[in-house]
Amino acid sequence: MENTMQFASRTTGPASRVVTASSIMNHCQKRRRIQLVPVLRISAILLLTIQFHFSRCYAEAIDLNPVEEWLAEHGDANLQNLIDFVSIPSVSSDHDHAHDVRECAKWLKADLQDAGLENVEILETKGHPSVYADWLRADDPDAPTVLIYGHFDVQPADPVDLWTTPPFEPHVREGKLYGRGASDDKGNMYVPVVAIKAYLKTFKKLPVNVKLLLEGEEEIGSPHMRQLLEHHAAKFAADYAFSADGGMVSPTTPSLCLMLRGAFAMELTLRTADRDMHSGSFGGGVQNPLHAMAHLLASLHDMETGRINVHGYYDDVDDLTEEERADIAKYPVPESERLRHEGVNVSVGEIGFNFYERTWARPTIEVVGMWGGFSGEGIKTVLPREAHAKLVCRTVSSQSADTSRKLIESHLTLAAAKIPGAVLEITRNPFSGSPFKTSKDTPGNTVVAAVLRNLFGREPVGMGMGGSIPVFTLLREILSVETTMLAFGHSDENVHAPDEFGRIDSFRKGEKAYVRLFQGLADAHAASRQGKVEL
Amino acid sequence: MENTMQFASRTTGPASRVVTASSIMNHCQKRRRIQLVPVLRISAILLLTIQFHFSRCYAEAIDLNPVEEWLAEHGDANLQNLIDFVSIPSVSSDHDHAHDVRECAKWLKADLQDAGLENVEILETKGHPSVYADWLRADDPDAPTVLIYGHFDVQPADPVDLWTTPPFEPHVREGKLYGRGASDDKGNMYVPVVAIKAYLKTFKKLPVNVKLLLEGEEEIGSPHMRQLLEHHAAKFAADYAFSADGGMVSPTTPSLCLMLRGAFAMELTLRTADRDMHSGSFGGGVQNPLHAMAHLLASLHDMETGRINVHGYYDDVDDLTEEERADIAKYPVPESERLRHEGVNVSVGEIGFNFYERTWARPTIEVVGMWGGFSGEGIKTVLPREAHAKLVCRTVSSQSADTSRKLIESHLTLAAAKIPGAVLEITRNPFSGSPFKTSKDTPGNTVVAAVLRNLFGREPVGMGMGGSIPVFTLLREILSVETTMLAFGHSDENVHAPDEFGRIDSFRKGEKAYVRLFQGLADAHAASRQGKVEL
Repeated sequence: MENTMQFASRTTGPASRVVTASSIMNHCQKRRRIQLVPVLRISAILLLTIQFHFSRCYAEAIDLNPVEEWLAEHGDANLQNLIDFVSIPSVSSDHDHAHDVRECAKWLKADLQDAGLENVEILETKGHPSVYADWLRADDPDAPTVLIYGHFDVQPADPVDLWTTPPFEPHVREGKLYGRGASDDKGNMYVPVVAIKAYLKTFKKLPVNVKLLLEGEEEIGSPHMRQLLEHHAAKFAADYAFSADGGMVSPTTPSLCLMLRGAFAMELTLRTADRDMHSGSFGGGVQNPLHAMAHLLASLHDMETGRINVHGYYDDVDDLTEEERADIAKYPVPESERLRHEGVNVSVGEIGFNFYERTWARPTIEVVGMWGGFSGEGIKTVLPREAHAKLVCRTVSSQSADTSRKLIESHLTLAAAKIPGAVLEITRNPFSGSPFKTSKDTPGNTVVAAVLRNLFGREPVGMGMGGSIPVFTLLREILSVETTMLAFGHSDENVHAPDEFGRIDSFRKGEKAYVRLFQGLADAHAASRQGKVEL
Repeated sequence: MENTMQFASRTTGPASRVVTASSIMNHCQKRRRIQLVPVLRISAILLLTIQFHFSRCYAEAIDLNPVEEWLAEHGDANLQNLIDFVSIPSVSSDHDHAHDVRECAKWLKADLQDAGLENVEILETKGHPSVYADWLRADDPDAPTVLIYGHFDVQPADPVDLWTTPPFEPHVREGKLYGRGASDDKGNMYVPVVAIKAYLKTFKKLPVNVKLLLEGEEEIGSPHMRQLLEHHAAKFAADYAFSADGGMVSPTTPSLCLMLRGAFAMELTLRTADRDMHSGSFGGGVQNPLHAMAHLLASLHDMETGRINVHGYYDDVDDLTEEERADIAKYPVPESERLRHEGVNVSVGEIGFNFYERTWARPTIEVVGMWGGFSGEGIKTVLPREAHAKLVCRTVSSQSADTSRKLIESHLTLAAAKIPGAVLEITRNPFSGSPFKTSKDTPGNTVVAAVLRNLFGREPVGMGMGGSIPVFTLLREILSVETTMLAFGHSDENVHAPDEFGRIDSFRKGEKAYVRLFQGLADAHAASRQGKVEL
């Protein structure tokens, strides 16, 4: 079996590992649209042998109880650490918070050192720093190397007045930790950190080699990640990458996240005058940039069909196959339930698709900000000199950010040229990432599926996410390593919104999952080498 | 001559004054669209007799030099007072500044008492207070009573970062006083106050009876002015009303302002969800309120014709006559010059009209504010739960605010109903005023024209203003007194915008104008009574 052989070959040494990972990647790329195959479609032999092996390990070889006991004993202390971590307003998009992002990196460095990780360092970029740490002294010289990704920067907290408690003064209410980043991604990122700490504090060692790549620029589209990975390719080389950014269907339903959309962003300024004017003295006699912006933005979508009006924008978007649609239809949360939490009655979007199809597999141009003139209390009779908008566009299939961006720019430029008296300026934002698709068949997902099945007592379901995590495609391209998402945030946690929270129970479950993942990977590799398991 | 007789009859006592003023108003209303007649078309006899009389008074009877000397000597002190006045952030639209509006009223009260005015009092309303003061002890028992209107509230100062110096820390640069309200209307309002002070300090008396109505809610559409005038009708009764709010073509060209547009305002909220969402997780799958708002606002105007798309909105708008167009064409400032100051190349608006026609005589729906989502630095991948807009609509001819408002509300409600997943909420703003037109033939304008001609050595030109001053139509309706605008602000003074300024030279000229106005009115009335001048 193709997958089984690849998995086995990964135990033969660093050089061949790269080749092997590369071949996996090639395999994935050839297939272009990797299908949302149900776990049951994975080779039955692989599945059964791994499952057999895991249960054998837990039952006979390795006793993980001391690690789990350490986690239970230190739950409060770990939570307090997370609270300290979330308290740092590491908003990467705001220059005023650049110092806080760096302070957060320093906090992490100290905490990782305290956990027992080694070679902890702050890696500089032209923007915000990232943090690296490793522990590479696994007893088994052939133990796999596991790269864990997460990010410690957060979204802005606006509108701050809609938060029940201040975004950077984390509060625990009903088992949930509230604060900006409590879920995305500080809460989730801290899960593998705690799991590593538990191992090292309990056993003074880990069963695998681990490397951590903790980013400070994910929320602004990882603009320096490519350079960072290229510059430190050897440092980050690994057999597996796992992402602590991502999510899971619900606290009780495990899932494998297999698709993410790409993204790029831009900002629009429409200028009609050198200065703000009196709306009485000039209104009706000069172009109003707010009117012009409304017309410009309205031109992007057909309100009746929900389709994007930009010529050629769908050219590189693959139609969903019947099989993909059927897989998506198996997702266990009805869209009405998903939407109800947000106070939305009905999914609105591209005609002919349901909510999950729209958000996982269809592109979008979203205006994420629009402003101009007076927004204070009451009325100001002003005719402003300019109007602004911020756009974040999501891509799917083989859409490239570059091509899609140019199509939108052409559309906007042509549309603006038809609006008299207004000059359009388009500023490209460095936020950019490619769409990501992976398969349930990858070695990483296969192991994660077994861990989750073991932990939840349920079969994990396949899912997509509408968001973007740019590093995954870069890891694939530069380090030839395929990323598997293993994160414990859920879709109702107000991510990027007021009152963001993370579930403390999910974090605790996640810590156990990572503990078992490390052991499971080590055991599987050892068993494979010893020929005990046919991997 | 109809006008001459009206003017003469106004000297016969308070009761008949009201009847007379009422008849002027009726006369004006009958004509509905008062034409922009050039001053030269005023009865030659009236013009010549008044002009003869003025020059005779100045040359022989009354020596105003001591008053003008006082003004010259106290120029610095008066300017310092104005600076103190402008320093008070009396922003009427912002509840946070309610205290400042009141402090400003108190400051005015003290200053008016210092000027020698009597019965100075702060008049309470359900909103911000107004200030009343009078001096009713003119020697001549038949001296006319002059009501002077101005306002001490100001527009918000946003965007504050575009000001060269802080909006409420007034600075003098190159003969201009910079600060919010330095022109509109504190600077202009203070002109007649200084003129009155100069008279009283010099002669201990005034040649006419004066009353001051200084409002604290003009910038929010004078929502309590009707009640105030009705409640204090006797207090405000007058033969003439002059407005120190308004403007003049340029520092060297005198003008009579004869038309103002009406106004009303509303705020729109489009809500699509209970909470902000992640633009990746939900984008393309739920309605984006920013997209919906763009479509809604875009529906208000036809970008090609510049016309308002609201059904029936032009029904009560009179076409401009050829004569009116010819009068407007005589306005001495080319539209290109007017626009150049604002950095605007070309007038954009309703097809078939030029800039002055558009802004003086055509209605408009202006979006004065539009906002939603993230407007900070960088990017936030948010799909907000709501979008907002503020509209200020200007009316002309016999358009009523009430009817026009309902037409827009119907349009928006229908348009929003076609946008799936969005709920529109329309909030009426109390800002409201009727269109105002007056004639160059009114007694007030006739006297003002003579004063300006005398002071500038040039014939005043007729002009309109696109803004709204709600009190004028209320004074006509409730007090039966016709308002004449005599104000010395100019269109380039960044009114309602950053770096608002007033010209100190124009204020000084304005003070002289008011001094001569008081004396001119007294002399004209005295001469009329004595039969020396055939008025």
